[in-house]
Order: sequence, then structure tokens, then C-alpha cells
Amino acid sequence: MPHLFDDVRPEDLRHADSYKWTTHPAEVLPLWVADMDFPVAEEITDALHRRLTRSVGYPQLQGDPALLDLLAARQTARGHPDLPREGMWLLPGVVPGLYASVLGLTGPGEEVLTHTPIYPPFLSAIEDHGRRTRPVPLLQQESGWEIDWGALEDSVTPATRLLLFCSPHNPTGRVWTREELERLGEFALRHRLWVVSDELHADLVLDGEFVSLASLGADIAQRTVTLTGPCKTFNTAGLPIGAAMSANPALIARLQLATRGVMAHPGALSIEMWRAGLTHGERWLGEVLDYLKGNREFLAQELRHNLPEVRFTPPQATYLAWLDFRAFRWSDEAYEFLLREARVGLNNGPTFGPGYQGFLRLNFATSRAVLQEALARIVHAAS
Amino acid sequence: MPHLFDDVRPEDLRHADSYKWTTHPAEVLPLWVADMDFPVAEEITDALHRRLTRSVGYPQLQGDPALLDLLAARQTARGHPDLPREGMWLLPGVVPGLYASVLGLTGPGEEVLTHTPIYPPFLSAIEDHGRRTRPVPLLQQESGWEIDWGALEDSVTPATRLLLFCSPHNPTGRVWTREELERLGEFALRHRLWVVSDELHADLVLDGEFVSLASLGADIAQRTVTLTGPCKTFNTAGLPIGAAMSANPALIARLQLATRGVMAHPGALSIEMWRAGLTHGERWLGEVLDYLKGNREFLAQELRHNLPEVRFTPPQATYLAWLDFRAFRWSDEAYEFLLREARVGLNNGPTFGPGYQGFLRLNFATSRAVLQEALARIVHAAS
Ligand SMILES: Cc1ncc(COP(=O)(O)O)c(C=O)c1O
Ligand SMILES: Cc1ncc(COP(=O)(O)O)c(C=O)c1O
Repeated sequence: MPHLFDDVRPEDLRHADSYKWTTHPAEVLPLWVADMDFPVAEEITDALHRRLTRSVGYPQLQGDPALLDLLAARQTARGHPDLPREGMWLLPGVVPGLYASVLGLTGPGEEVLTHTPIYPPFLSAIEDHGRRTRPVPLLQQESGWEIDWGALEDSVTPATRLLLFCSPHNPTGRVWTREELERLGEFALRHRLWVVSDELHADLVLDGEFVSLASLGADIAQRTVTLTGPCKTFNTAGLPIGAAMSANPALIARLQLATRGVMAHPGALSIEMWRAGLTHGERWLGEVLDYLKGNREFLAQELRHNLPEVRFTPPQATYLAWLDFRAFRWSDEAYEFLLREARVGLNNGPTFGPGYQGFLRLNFATSRAVLQEALARIVHAAS
Repeated sequence: MPHLFDDVRPEDLRHADSYKWTTHPAEVLPLWVADMDFPVAEEITDALHRRLTRSVGYPQLQGDPALLDLLAARQTARGHPDLPREGMWLLPGVVPGLYASVLGLTGPGEEVLTHTPIYPPFLSAIEDHGRRTRPVPLLQQESGWEIDWGALEDSVTPATRLLLFCSPHNPTGRVWTREELERLGEFALRHRLWVVSDELHADLVLDGEFVSLASLGADIAQRTVTLTGPCKTFNTAGLPIGAAMSANPALIARLQLATRGVMAHPGALSIEMWRAGLTHGERWLGEVLDYLKGNREFLAQELRHNLPEVRFTPPQATYLAWLDFRAFRWSDEAYEFLLREARVGLNNGPTFGPGYQGFLRLNFATSRAVLQEALARIVHAAS
């Protein structure tokens, strides 16, 4: 049965306003930055059109109460303890929240743990203002990517303050189990670390059940800042907004103090979009998840049949595939090779941490046809 | 002749999304935060509706080239030397640009000059991260507000690094003359100060001619960062965006370095709005300026006739009136008195710097009827 998302066509997407579709020359298929090629939910665009019939003056600068109510309800539904209003802070994007967390919870020269490979801004958030990354590589098992508990313990020093955690995990797509999260919480408490849990991909779970770290108990909730936002769920990165939340308002106050005035307020249409998504976004999201599951199976099958040299565990969440091309002789320049020979633009492994030369991240949130064409080109170039 | 803007009605404006119209109880007329009560230009809302038919994924994160071209052309038209592309930086608002300027161009403990009274975030931008304000009060002359050149010279110490300058000036509405700007430029060069010229109100000139500081010559342009944005001109504070520009890209690089990662990227609809405003905003802006001139005359006449105790020089730019109520016995609590007795919400003088107890800022960008009612209430309470 043909699907609406099948109709997505490069010639319509390749507009000057799209970062994803204009960074490479037109003949390159861009399967990199984490936008989906699908149109935004009608429920959301309808709300935005209606919003434009009213004033777009200053929105509620202390945080839109209606949006905060919706977010608090969602976190409660996810098992969080009731969030105090001062424990909720609307942000003009999630990356600024990563930076604010590092600036507010650590000092210059202090150390931050993070599981690599990792979404590159985790690394720059740590390092841009003089903190030190302690990368803790995930273990690449037959079953997929696993936390290396021994390496995690060994990485803690007296200068370690914070664990910058990605849940679900970008780029591997791991959905952490309750057991893993409990062990991680116990670890953080034992070492008196702060934890930032970036849960931006939590709605994009394809298999299994998402568990929010701060829902595990009051102890860990007191040491955790949860970051979230609508841009992955609803495909609205151009309407930037996010939130930092903690059961411990003192942590939010530290983030705010460190970034006072530099942190912009989110725009009125970003607020409207997120409210509409939280209220009316389910139907569209369900369709997206179905389509993504189909693309994930297709990708896995194609690779298994035509490119078995690529090591790959299908992601449990996100629309990102973390591909190990190290079996190929050109793997030291895998990114450049596939850009040049296959005309496919992926994300380059080494930007996700030290040791990921030969890995690439592929964004499969596109039409089946574009995905098929991109894979055919990769197979052809690799053969 | 009745005017479209005459139709603006409190009951339509008092929506939960409006910061201006919901901060006070419904019976208060809010003439405070710098939004206009007029509807946004149709040319802009049309462009936004059209923009929503396309993807709102990540916009051009290195700065939208079409918008940068328009801005560069406008600065050239204002007499600036050609701006290098690395000398232009799009911001998620102008206040974040004030903070980035202070953080990038000064160190903790260093001193920043600014002419008081001043838009309050100038003071917090200086002080929130440990710099020191050297307030240089403007002189209140019969003719209006004037720079105190002696006080300016006397305020410079070896720790002075920056002049944070507002042009046109909020809250007095002064449009600085070419002669004043030349003298100020000479002063900054002689003391080797950086200058940040916040020119956010430059399009809202009611009398006289706006001159941009950095247009005066290559020397001063090399020491100046110009801040601008569309939110005052087009009444779009809910679509936050701005720009920091300098003929000296090294200054912009310093602002960027100091705020890396924390500074959000502007949203896709903010970009579209500014492009549409710069391209098609003239007609609407002309109408607004006419209406504001009418309101300014009305305000001046009402005060002259009915409240001659209020000292006031009609602003040459902006829709803000800086009113001196010190002749009244209740002037020590003028803000609270008028909120309580007149049910009119203004901005409180002391937030604009030390020594402005008894002053209030009034925003006259509303319908004539609302302005008339607010003034009648003030006159009644004061009599
Ligand atoms: C884990 C994670 N955090 C943050 C972001 C970026 O969020 P924003 O665009 O709101 O800054 C992404 C985008 O891919 C992400 O994957
Ligand atoms: C001089 C000046 N700068 C900056 C701002 C705020 O700009 P933004 O809302 O883009 O932060 C204002 C708002 O009144 C202003 O008057």
C-alpha cells in the first residue's frame, strides 16, 4: 500500500532554506543531519496558521504556563515525581541546554563522562569551555552496543563531576533497559555525580519500552537534569525549543545562572508547535513510527544481503543507523569515499568520538525510494 | 479619518499568549514592554503562511545567506563599509547579543560605560557575569536629553573597556546627531574602547535622520559591533532574531567564542519574517510611523494641557515616552501609585539606572483610544 511518505521527493526538499538538502551538491543524497524528510503533522501546521492570526509580540517570558503544564503531565506519565515549576526551564533548543548543563554543573578543568560514540555536540559542550571529556566507549557485542561497566568505573577520578548521558542513544539507537538505568543510577549516586539525561529521542522508540532515568527514584531524580524537546519527534528543528527539567530546582538554577541573558527565550511559534504536538501529535507520530520501522527492516535486509561486510545492529529507537565499514579497504576515508563514489552524504564516524574512523551514521527518515537509491549507490560503490 | 490601528481592542489583545497583556489584571491598561498593539504587516504574515507549506527542518545554521545579503545591503545603504561575511552573525534575539558583547569584549571586573537612563538589560548584561557598570547619566536640559561630555571623560578609568551605546536611545527616544556620534567616536578611539551600538530602534525614527555609528569611518567601524533586529520595526518580538555586525570580524569571533553553543540558532520562521520585512515591510512601516507620530503629538498635548507638572521631551524615535513625575508628592512610588490608582501599567524608572526614582516609561504604540483612556486615568489619579 503506498504511503504518504513515499511521495517525498528530492526536488521538493532541495530548497535553499534546508540545511540538510543544500549542504552537498544536488546529485548527492543527504542522509545526514537529523531531520526527517516527512512533512510536519497537519495538526501542527494548522495550529501554526491559526497562531499567526494573533499578535506575535513577546510570549510569556517566564515560561509558557500551558506548555509547562503539558510537559509536567507528560513527565508524570513517564513516572517522574511531580516536578516543581522552578524545576522546569524552557530553552531555545536542546544543544544550548547541553552547554548550560556543563557550564552550570562543572567547573573549568573538571571531568565529564560520556558514552562514545556520541552525538558530537556532547563532546563540544564539554570541551568548548574548558571541561575535559572522559569518553567511555560502548562495547560492540554481537547483540549490539552495551555499556562497559568496568571502563565506566575506571574512568572516574576525583575531578569527575558529571555524566552526560544520551537516552535513547544517538548514534547507536540503543534504548537502555530499566536494569541498565538502575545500575547507572546506582553508579552516579555512589560517585556523587550529576547526570544530564538527554531524552530528545524518547518518543521515537521502535522496539522495547523507554524508561526515563529520573523516574527510577527520588535519589537519582535529585541528581539528574532531564533534557527534552519536540524537534526529533515532530520534525521541527527549524522551530527551536527544548526544556531542562529536574526534581531538584537548585540544579536548574545553576544552569540558569551560568548562562543568564545569553540563553534566548523560545519563540511564540515554537511554543505553539510544541503545545500542538503534545496535544494532537499522536496520530502523525504513529504513522511516522510505522514508516520508520519499515525503513529499518528494509535497511537491515539490504545490508545483510548486499553488504554483509557492514557490521550493524538495527536501532531500537531513532531513525539513525550506526554502520561499521571497517571491513573495507577504503574505511579510513569512508565518509569521503561514499560522498565521492556513491554520492551519498552521511555523518562521519570520527566526529562521534575518538576511535570511530570507518564508522558512519545514516539517517533513514526519508522515503523508501530515496533510501533504496542511496543503498543501491553505496552497494555499487563498495563492490 | 479612522485608521486600521484605531480598531485595536484590549479584549482581543488580552490573550494568554501575550506577556504584555497578561502580566497585570485585566482592568489595567498595559503600556509597558516594547510590543506594539498593532497587527503584524500582512506582507509578513503572508510570507509566514507560505513558509509553513515547506519543511521546517534545520535552517542554514551558518547564517541564512539570503537574509545576510539583505542585511549587508541595508548596512551599505546606511553608509557602512562593506561587511565581510565573517563580520555578520545572526542571533536568537538582541539581548543575547548584548550579553555576548560584554562577555566577548571585556573580562570580569572590567568596566563598561553606558548612558543612563538605559534599557534595563544593558545593566544586567554588564553585571550578571561580573563586569562593572559606569553609568554616565544624560543631562536633562530644556531641549531634551543630552550627553554629558565631561562626565563621560571623567568616567574612564584604566579598567574601562567598552561603551554600551543605545542609538536611537531607549528610553529617551533621542536620535543622536552626526556631530554627537563623531564626538563619541573620537572619544572611543582616544581611549581605545570597544563600542557596541544597539540600533534596534533605527527604523522607528519620527524626526530627524538616523546615523549609524559605524558608518562614520573605518577607524570607528573597526572598534564597533552594531546590534540590530526586526522586532521593534515589525512588531515581532515573539519571532526572536537579531544580528551582530562588525567591519572587524575579530570582534564577532570574540563574541562567538565567549558564548559558543549556548547561543541558540534563530528559527526558520524568524528568518522568513525578517527577510519578508526587509523586502516588503516599507508600506506597513510607513503607516506605523504616521500613526506613532499622531500618538506622540496627542500624548504631548494631553500632558501639556492636563498634567503640566510632568517633564517630558517628545521622543525623536521609538514609541516610548520617558516621563518625569518627580513634581508629584507620590513620585517615590510613582509606578505603584499609577498601577493602583490609575490602573495603568508603565515601566518603573529605577530599573533604568540609579537616580530615576519618579520617572516612568510609557509605551504609546497602541490605539488612540487606549492611549486616551490611559492618559485620562493618569490625569484623574494625579489630580
Ligand atoms: C541527542 C540529541 N540532543 C540534541 C540534539 C539537538 O537538539 P536541538 O536542535 O534542539 O539543539 C540532537 C539532534 O540531533 C540530538 O540527537
Ligand atoms: C535597545 C533595545 N535592545 C534590545 C531589545 C530587546 O531585543 P530582543 O527582544 O530581540 O532581545 C530592546 C527591546 O525593547 C531594546 O529596546
